[in-house]
Amino acid sequence: MDERTGLPVVGMVGAGQLARMTHQAAIALGQSLRVLADSRDDGAALVAADVVVGDYRSLDDLRAFARGCDVVTFDHEHVPHEHIVALAADGVPVHPGAAALRFAQDKRAMRERLTELGVPCPRWAPISDAGELDAFATQVGWPLVLKATTGGYDGKGVWVVGNALDAAAVLASGTPLIAEQKVQIVRELAADVARSPFGQGAVWPVVETVQRDGICVEVIAPAPDLDDDTAEQVQALALRIAGELGVTGVLAVELFQTADGLLVNELAMRPHNSAHWTIEGARTSQFEQHLRAVLDYPLGSTAQTAPVVVMANLLAGPDDVVPKGIDERVHHLMAHWPEVKLHLYGKHFRPGRKVGHLTALGDDLATVRARVAEAADYLMNGERT
Amino acid sequence: MDERTGLPVVGMVGAGQLARMTHQAAIALGQSLRVLADSRDDGAALVAADVVVGDYRSLDDLRAFARGCDVVTFDHEHVPHEHIVALAADGVPVHPGAAALRFAQDKRAMRERLTELGVPCPRWAPISDAGELDAFATQVGWPLVLKATTGGYDGKGVWVVGNALDAAAVLASGTPLIAEQKVQIVRELAADVARSPFGQGAVWPVVETVQRDGICVEVIAPAPDLDDDTAEQVQALALRIAGELGVTGVLAVELFQTADGLLVNELAMRPHNSAHWTIEGARTSQFEQHLRAVLDYPLGSTAQTAPVVVMANLLAGPDDVVPKGIDERVHHLMAHWPEVKLHLYGKHFRPGRKVGHLTALGDDLATVRARVAEAADYLMNGERT
Repeated sequence: MDERTGLPVVGMVGAGQLARMTHQAAIALGQSLRVLADSRDDGAALVAADVVVGDYRSLDDLRAFARGCDVVTFDHEHVPHEHIVALAADGVPVHPGAAALRFAQDKRAMRERLTELGVPCPRWAPISDAGELDAFATQVGWPLVLKATTGGYDGKGVWVVGNALDAAAVLASGTPLIAEQKVQIVRELAADVARSPFGQGAVWPVVETVQRDGICVEVIAPAPDLDDDTAEQVQALALRIAGELGVTGVLAVELFQTADGLLVNELAMRPHNSAHWTIEGARTSQFEQHLRAVLDYPLGSTAQTAPVVVMANLLAGPDDVVPKGIDERVHHLMAHWPEVKLHLYGKHFRPGRKVGHLTALGDDLATVRARVAEAADYLMNGERT
Repeated sequence: MDERTGLPVVGMVGAGQLARMTHQAAIALGQSLRVLADSRDDGAALVAADVVVGDYRSLDDLRAFARGCDVVTFDHEHVPHEHIVALAADGVPVHPGAAALRFAQDKRAMRERLTELGVPCPRWAPISDAGELDAFATQVGWPLVLKATTGGYDGKGVWVVGNALDAAAVLASGTPLIAEQKVQIVRELAADVARSPFGQGAVWPVVETVQRDGICVEVIAPAPDLDDDTAEQVQALALRIAGELGVTGVLAVELFQTADGLLVNELAMRPHNSAHWTIEGARTSQFEQHLRAVLDYPLGSTAQTAPVVVMANLLAGPDDVVPKGIDERVHHLMAHWPEVKLHLYGKHFRPGRKVGHLTALGDDLATVRARVAEAADYLMNGERT
């Protein structure tokens, strides 16, 4: 508890854009997010008052960071499981807890648990050698997908392999793997929910996430042409997963829509790119909701604020626009697209890196989508399509 | 320019709630607001990364603060005029500039200028002695209003006096004064606009501001039952004042609605309580717009996001709820009023002090207004009306 304000102190391990946007939400709630940053240059460290620089892989650093926090939460899944267990054993309230987080940290554990729960997933198998892979390939055919059980994100740790020879190179690395059927995807969806320790759940409208090279480039809320029954089933499924896994905070359930139905692709237990649109597009943003959930506050309304909301990620183009040029582009962005909302994360630009996002609201999907895409392309590449 | 991000550094003198909420807006624009705080306990100093503790009355402190800022702006009107002139002479871009700010700092100068411009105001006169006051009272009658020309806010520096005897005590203090006719007010309105150095102007819908004991308690957007012609006239008047006075940044024009028409009451050249509703209630909040304006960025859309928006100030009640009890009340607030958005300023509670505000959006004025008022009363007084 902050003695000056009488309000809780939330500590977030990690100081990237998720922590940065969570801090914005914390300010409204009378709080100031404490962040554990790798460096003073991290996106959240540039804007927060209560910054601890330390190593999330060090239990000593985590313990020092947690001191004085009413709850500890995460902006990424990379904190070692045993450290989260140790923090909880110290009496630190940690949300989501170690038992739930395991299913976001370990893809094999996630697949095993979802399979037990009867949640539809791509066909999969744990793989420890070429023989097991060969057996699995016989069932699902080539190409198939190999995934590192831990440490992957944004397409890293995922390999689409066309044959046993290609797979051999991945197997040779010694990385613990699972194999998954390469399903024919119609499109990708996401269902974002929040759940509090008390057990209250809240779910935002199901969205379509548009990927390019394994990275999300665009999110459309609500998912276009998704019938109400399916949308409700997906929302119910996501809430059920949150409950069964004991998730506290925000849970993102990423799904594949296929000709044969919906399959769960990935889980993330933190604010997630698929719900950045909620900052302007929902009555309660995922960042405020995550704070409410981990603090066991009642959850806020998830109602959408406009018929159509589109978010486009800002993926840095090949130009070096930092420090030169980005400010001029922001001027032009504001002049040409006055209805578009800008979010920059304070990150160094590297080609392909997510350095921010844009959001627009409206009535007509095609118009809103085209405007946001144009604006994002201009801001990153300096050209108008 | 921040070398890491390639984006500008805005410095705001003062670190109260206006700076606190401006910092939230700055984060989205990729910036981090630099604040000049009286103390580390100031509302914005609790949440911002770039805090300088110093005295806004010291030119040395202001100069040190301004170093490295691309523009300096203000969260209050109390910086001495000559210091603002000196900063500008140093080459620091200051917005609003000294010439404009004078009309927000000096009520006599404001009345003289508005009178020259033909802007409708209450009848007024500068007062230096009892004889001048007597002559003015003969014209407008008792009671009348005495105002300190400088330093007033939230009802401070304003005296309603019923007769010459009451007025004598105020005159005896030696405070430079103007006298104003005490007009019969139907209600109070405000027109908030932004203007950039380039000369672009933007105006939000005209609002009704509900006052109690000289302090704003509630703001309703748009002002109920205001006919479109009058609303447009008020908006045009506010934009004209911003242009004629050379205002850069946000300008709040507070007005009296009377049986005989509208009269300008006060001007404020900074984000203003009458536009806090814009955070959720308009496409561009006054805080983002103020940053855009002082940076000479193009201005954002001022469209309202719902038919009715009501903001209620949180004025601390007699209870000592800090540090005890406020967090429990926040829980109950969120449970009972899930649609209401909370903004707490990190301030110490003192009876009557503005410690935050609530905002709600909807379709039906009576419902939204009642809900927000109930919620504010509960949060401050611990009781449900």
